[in-house]
Amino acid sequence: MPSAFNSGDTAWLMASTAMVLLMTPGLAFFYGGMVKTQHVLVMLKMSFACLAVVTVLWLTVGYSLAFSGDVGGAGLIGNLDQAFLNGIGPTTMHGSIPTIVFSCFQMAFAIITVALISGSIAGRATMRGWLVFGSLWALVVYVPLAHWVFATDGWVVAKLGALDFAGGLPVELNSGAAGLAVAIALRKRQDFERRPIQPHNLPLVVIGLALLWFGWFGFNAGSALQDVGAAPAAFLNTQLAAAGAMVGWPLIEKWRLGHVEMLGVASAAVAGMVAITPSCGEVAPVGALAIGFSAGVVCCFAINLKYKIGVDDTLDVVGVHGWGGIVGTLSIGLFATAQISGKKGLFYGGGVDLLWRQAVAVLACGTFSFTVTWLIAKLVDSTVGFRTEESYEDVPGEEEELAYDNETIDRIRERLGGVKEPSLTAPGGSDDAALLGQVVKILEQREREK
Amino acid sequence: MPSAFNSGDTAWLMASTAMVLLMTPGLAFFYGGMVKTQHVLVMLKMSFACLAVVTVLWLTVGYSLAFSGDVGGAGLIGNLDQAFLNGIGPTTMHGSIPTIVFSCFQMAFAIITVALISGSIAGRATMRGWLVFGSLWALVVYVPLAHWVFATDGWVVAKLGALDFAGGLPVELNSGAAGLAVAIALRKRQDFERRPIQPHNLPLVVIGLALLWFGWFGFNAGSALQDVGAAPAAFLNTQLAAAGAMVGWPLIEKWRLGHVEMLGVASAAVAGMVAITPSCGEVAPVGALAIGFSAGVVCCFAINLKYKIGVDDTLDVVGVHGWGGIVGTLSIGLFATAQISGKKGLFYGGGVDLLWRQAVAVLACGTFSFTVTWLIAKLVDSTVGFRTEESYEDVPGEEEELAYDNETIDRIRERLGGVKEPSLTAPGGSDDAALLGQVVKILEQREREK
Amino acid sequence: MPSAFNSGDTAWLMASTAMVLLMTPGLAFFYGGMVKTQHVLVMLKMSFACLAVVTVLWLTVGYSLAFSGDVGGAGLIGNLDQAFLNGIGPTTMHGSIPTIVFSCFQMAFAIITVALISGSIAGRATMRGWLVFGSLWALVVYVPLAHWVFATDGWVVAKLGALDFAGGLPVELNSGAAGLAVAIALRKRQDFERRPIQPHNLPLVVIGLALLWFGWFGFNAGSALQDVGAAPAAFLNTQLAAAGAMVGWPLIEKWRLGHVEMLGVASAAVAGMVAITPSCGEVAPVGALAIGFSAGVVCCFAINLKYKIGVDDTLDVVGVHGWGGIVGTLSIGLFATAQISGKKGLFYGGGVDLLWRQAVAVLACGTFSFTVTWLIAKLVDSTVGFRTEESYEDVPGEEEELAYDNETIDRIRERLGGVKEPSLTAPGGSDDAALLGQVVKILEQREREK
Repeated sequence: MPSAFNSGDTAWLMASTAMVLLMTPGLAFFYGGMVKTQHVLVMLKMSFACLAVVTVLWLTVGYSLAFSGDVGGAGLIGNLDQAFLNGIGPTTMHGSIPTIVFSCFQMAFAIITVALISGSIAGRATMRGWLVFGSLWALVVYVPLAHWVFATDGWVVAKLGALDFAGGLPVELNSGAAGLAVAIALRKRQDFERRPIQPHNLPLVVIGLALLWFGWFGFNAGSALQDVGAAPAAFLNTQLAAAGAMVGWPLIEKWRLGHVEMLGVASAAVAGMVAITPSCGEVAPVGALAIGFSAGVVCCFAINLKYKIGVDDTLDVVGVHGWGGIVGTLSIGLFATAQISGKKGLFYGGGVDLLWRQAVAVLACGTFSFTVTWLIAKLVDSTVGFRTEESYEDVPGEEEELAYDNETIDRIRERLGGVKEPSLTAPGGSDDAALLGQVVKILEQREREK
Repeated sequence: MPSAFNSGDTAWLMASTAMVLLMTPGLAFFYGGMVKTQHVLVMLKMSFACLAVVTVLWLTVGYSLAFSGDVGGAGLIGNLDQAFLNGIGPTTMHGSIPTIVFSCFQMAFAIITVALISGSIAGRATMRGWLVFGSLWALVVYVPLAHWVFATDGWVVAKLGALDFAGGLPVELNSGAAGLAVAIALRKRQDFERRPIQPHNLPLVVIGLALLWFGWFGFNAGSALQDVGAAPAAFLNTQLAAAGAMVGWPLIEKWRLGHVEMLGVASAAVAGMVAITPSCGEVAPVGALAIGFSAGVVCCFAINLKYKIGVDDTLDVVGVHGWGGIVGTLSIGLFATAQISGKKGLFYGGGVDLLWRQAVAVLACGTFSFTVTWLIAKLVDSTVGFRTEESYEDVPGEEEELAYDNETIDRIRERLGGVKEPSLTAPGGSDDAALLGQVVKILEQREREK
Repeated sequence: MPSAFNSGDTAWLMASTAMVLLMTPGLAFFYGGMVKTQHVLVMLKMSFACLAVVTVLWLTVGYSLAFSGDVGGAGLIGNLDQAFLNGIGPTTMHGSIPTIVFSCFQMAFAIITVALISGSIAGRATMRGWLVFGSLWALVVYVPLAHWVFATDGWVVAKLGALDFAGGLPVELNSGAAGLAVAIALRKRQDFERRPIQPHNLPLVVIGLALLWFGWFGFNAGSALQDVGAAPAAFLNTQLAAAGAMVGWPLIEKWRLGHVEMLGVASAAVAGMVAITPSCGEVAPVGALAIGFSAGVVCCFAINLKYKIGVDDTLDVVGVHGWGGIVGTLSIGLFATAQISGKKGLFYGGGVDLLWRQAVAVLACGTFSFTVTWLIAKLVDSTVGFRTEESYEDVPGEEEELAYDNETIDRIRERLGGVKEPSLTAPGGSDDAALLGQVVKILEQREREK
C-alpha cells in the first residue's frame, strides 16, 4: 500500500461518499413529496436519471475535465488525460485517500447538483429535454465550476484566493443560478400565481430531508478529504447551521403567517446547510450558528421573490440554494477564523480583503452559470423540446404509470356492475381524484337514469 | 495532529454520530406514522424542534454542564468552563478522538432523548408548550443525568459504581420516567380508553424503525468511543437483542391476540435495542439474546399497564423505553461478563454486588427524572400552556397545513359544479375523511333537492 | 490490541455492516410498495422476520457451519466449533478486523438472502410456513453456499477456482434459483396472468431502492474486508453498474412500451448492482459499465419469461436476482483484469479458463439451490402449510391490522347516522376500496329505500 495512504481517512471518505450518494434519492423524495400526486414519479425520475447519466459522464470525461491537470494554466478547465479514469489504479493517491475514492466522492457532488435544478421546473419539463439538458449542463456548466473551485489549480482558489470549503459555489450557488435561468427559459406554469404548490405528501418531503441531512455530514465533513483537521468542525458546524436556520426561518414565518409549517421547517434546515457548505471548515461554532440563522431569515423572504419577478421557480431552488449559497459564500468573508486557510474574515480582524474576493467569486460563478444555463435550456427547448405542452401541466404526459394504487378503481367498477370508463385509466390524474370523481359520476348517472 | 489521535476511531465516531443524528428523524416517522393523519405533522415538528433547539442549547451550555469538570466533586453537575465549546479546538482530544466529535456524538443523544418524550403526549401538546418544556427539560433533567452517567466523574459511575454502556439511564429510563410524568401532568385524551391508537400509516412507522435500527449501531457501538475493545461486541449485541425481542414479543402477542401485528414487531425491535443499550458492551452474545428476549416479553405486557393505571402514555414511551430501560439496566447485574468493566453479574459469579448498584441507579435516576419532569410540565402548563384544548384533540389546532394532498377536494368540488364548503378546508381533519364525508354530503343534499 | 488489527478497516467494516443490515428494511419497502395495499404488511413482516430469525440462527450454528474449519476437507460445510461464537473474543481477528465484525457482516448477508426469496411468493405464503421455510432454508441452503464461496476453504473458491467477490453465487443466484423453486412449489396466484402486479405505492418502492443502493456500497466495497486494495474499485464499480443498467433497461422499455416507468428504472438499478456483486473487485470501470448495461438489458427481457413458462415469480426475484446473478458471475470470465485475483477474463487475454469455471459454479450452485429449495418448500407446505387458501389471496388472511388508517370509515359511518356494517372492519381488504365500496353501497341502499 502506498505510503501516503491512511486507512481511517479512507474509511471516512468511503462512508461519506455513500452518504452523499444517498442525498440524490433524498432530494427526489424532498421534491417528489412537494409536488402534486400526478408529478411525483416525474420528480423521482428526474433525480434518478442524474444518478445514471451523470455517473457515466463523470467516468468518461467529467472527472478528467474537472480534476486532471489544468489546460493552459488559466485555471478554467482540466485536460482529458484521465478520461475513463485512465492511469488511476488502486494505488494512485489523492492526498491520503485513493484517487478512486476521491473521484467517487466528487461524482456524488456532480450528480446532486444537476438533480437540484429539477426543482425549479417541476411539472413542466419533458423527460427527453431533461436528459439532454442535464447531460450538457453537467459537462458545460458543472465541470468547469468544479475545476475553478475544487481543483487546486482552479482560478477561484488559486488566482482569486476565494474560499469554498465544500461547494457553496459549484453546487449551491450554481444550482440556484441555473434554476433561475431554466425557470425563465421554460416559462411559468399556467396556474403559477393562482395556486401555490400544495405538497401531496409532506411525510415524504421530510423523509427526503432526513436523508439529505444525514448525507450532508458526509458532504461537508468529507470535504476535508481526511478525518482530522477541519473535518470535525465541518461536521459540528453543519448541525449548528441547520439548527440556526430552523430558529430563524420559523420566527419569520410565525410573524408573517401566524403559524409555523413543517414545510418551512424542512426548507429552513436545507437553507442552513446550504449556507454552511462553503464555510463549514473555516468558521467557529458561533459563526456557524449565525450563518445558519441568517440564511434561514434571508431564504424565508427570498422564496417569495419569485412572485414579485414572475419567475416560476417552482420548488424554490433559487430561493433556498441560490440565496443560501450567496449568504454562505459571502459569510466566509465575515466569519473566517483562519483556523484552516489562514485567512480571516471581517469580524475576525481580516478586513474586507477576503470579503471582496468572495463577492467576486459569487458574481463570476453566478453570471457564468446563469448565462450558459439559459443558452443550453433554450437550445434544448428549440431542438428536442424541453417544455411540456400546457395541457400536460396537470398530468405526467409521458407515461401511464401511477404513483399510488388505483386498483380501488377496478373494485368500485366491479361492485357497480362493470361500468366501462376507459378515461378512468387514462395517463396521470390524481388516483384518488379520478376514483372519487368516478364514483360521483356513476351515481349521478344512475340518478339521471331513474 | 495530536499523538492520541486515532484516525480509524474518528472515522467510526463521525459515522456513528451521523447515524445517531438520523435517529431523531427516524423517531419522527416512527411516531408520525402511529398517530392519526391529522397529527402526523405535529409529531414530525416535535422531533425536528429538538434537532434545532437542543443543538443550540448543547453548544451554549449543555455540553459544558454535562462534561466539563465536576462542580464540587459530588458528581452532580459540570461547570460552565466549556460553554460555547470554549477552549475546544481541532486538536483537543477526548481519548483518541477529537473532543468536537465527542461533543457532537453526545449532542445527538441529548436531542433524541428529548424527542422520545413527545410520544407520551402525542396529539395533545401545544407546540409553544413543547418548545419551552423541551428546552427546560434538556437542561434541568437530561444534562444532569448525562453528567451522572457519561462523565467519568459523574456519581453513578464514579461513586455508585453502576454500569451503563450507552445510555440506559440518561436516555431510555429517563425518557420513560419523563414520559410518565408528562403524560400524567397533561391528562389523558378524551377518547383514551375508548379508542386505541390506530396508526394512520404503518409503512411510515417501519421506515422510522429502519432508521432507528441503523442509527442504533452508531449509538451503541459508537459509545465505545473507538472501534476496538467493546465496539464490535456492542454492535453484535445490538442486533442480537433486537432479534431476541422480536422473538419474545410476538410469542406473547400470538398467545394473547391470536395473531402478530407489524406494530408489535416494530415495537419489539425497539424494546430489544432499548434494553441492550446499557449493557451492550458488557455482556456475552447469549446474554444479549436473553436480555432482548426478556425485554420483548416484559414490554409486551407493560404497554397495557397504561389502561390499568389510567395514564395516557399515548405511544408507549413508558412501556417501551421506561420498562426496557429498567430491564436492560438491571440485566447488567445479571449478565455482565467483566470483559470490559471488570465487573461480573450474578450469573457470571459476581454475586449481587453489581445488581444492587444497578437497582439504586435505576431508582435514583427514575425518581429524579419523574419528579423534576412533572414539576416542569406543570410549570409550563400553568404559564405558557402545554395541554391543547380538548376540542382540538382531533385537529392539529395550531396550523393550516395538511400532511397529504387535499387537491382532490377542489377537483371533486369543480366536477360537482362549484359547491361552496368552506368548512372543508378548515384546519386539520383527515383529508380523505373530509373528502368522502363531503361527497356523501353533497349526494345526500342532491337527493333531498330532487 | 492484536497486532493484525487495523482501526480504519474496522471502522469501514462496522459502517458497512450497518449499511448492509439496512438493506433488509430497504428490501421490505421495495417489495412492500410493489404489492397491493392489503399485502404490504405481510411483505414487511416477511423481511423483518428474517432480521429476527436468521440473526438467532446465525449466532447459534449458522456462522460456525459457514466459516469454522471445513469438515472433511471437501469444502462442502464447516464444523460446529464456533457455534454460539464459541472462542471468539474481542481480540480474535479475521485478517485486520475483529472476527466479531466479520461475523456480523456475514450475518447481514444471510438475512437479506432469505428475505429476497419472499418476493417470488408475495401475497400467497402463510407466515407460519415462511418462518419454518426461512429457518430451514437459511441453514440447509444458504449456509452451505456461503461456505462454498466465502470461506477460504470452500470448494468453489479453493478447488474450482471460480471468483465471486461479494456474493453473486450465495446471495444473488441463490435467491433467484430458490425464488424459482418456491414460486413453482407454491403455485401461481389465481389472477397471475390476468392482472400484472400494480404497485400500491411507488414512492415506497423507491425509498426501498434508496436504502438498498446505499447499503450496497457496504455490501460490495465492504467485501474487501479492508478499505484498501479492491475496496475503492468495488465501490466505484457498484455505482457504474447501477448507472449502466439504468441506461440499458430503459432503452429496451422505451422501445417495447413506448415509455419508461419508474418501476423499470428502480428494477434496473437493482439488476445492475446484482450483476456487479460478484465481479465488483475484479473488473475495470469500463467492464463495470458494460456488465451493468448488459444486466439491464437481459433482466428487462427476463422479467417477462415468467409469463411464458407460467411461473408466478411475483416480484421478479428470478428475473432480477437470478438472471442478474448469472450475468454477473459469468461476466467475470469475460472482464476480470487480474488486478486482485491474478486471473484474467476472456476479453483481457485470459482465454476461456476462468469463464468455464464461472459457468460450472453457476450450474452447481443454481442446481443445488433450486433442488433443495423445492424439497424444503414442498415439505413445509405439506406439514405446517405454506400456501395460503386461494380465497385469501386478496386479503392478508392472518391478521386484523391495516397498513393505512381506516378511521375514515368510522367517520363516514358516523356522518351517515350509525349504519352498522360489521363486514367493513373485517380483516384486510384495501382500506380505500372498502371505504369507497361502503359509501357506494350505503348510497345505493338509500336509493332503493326511497
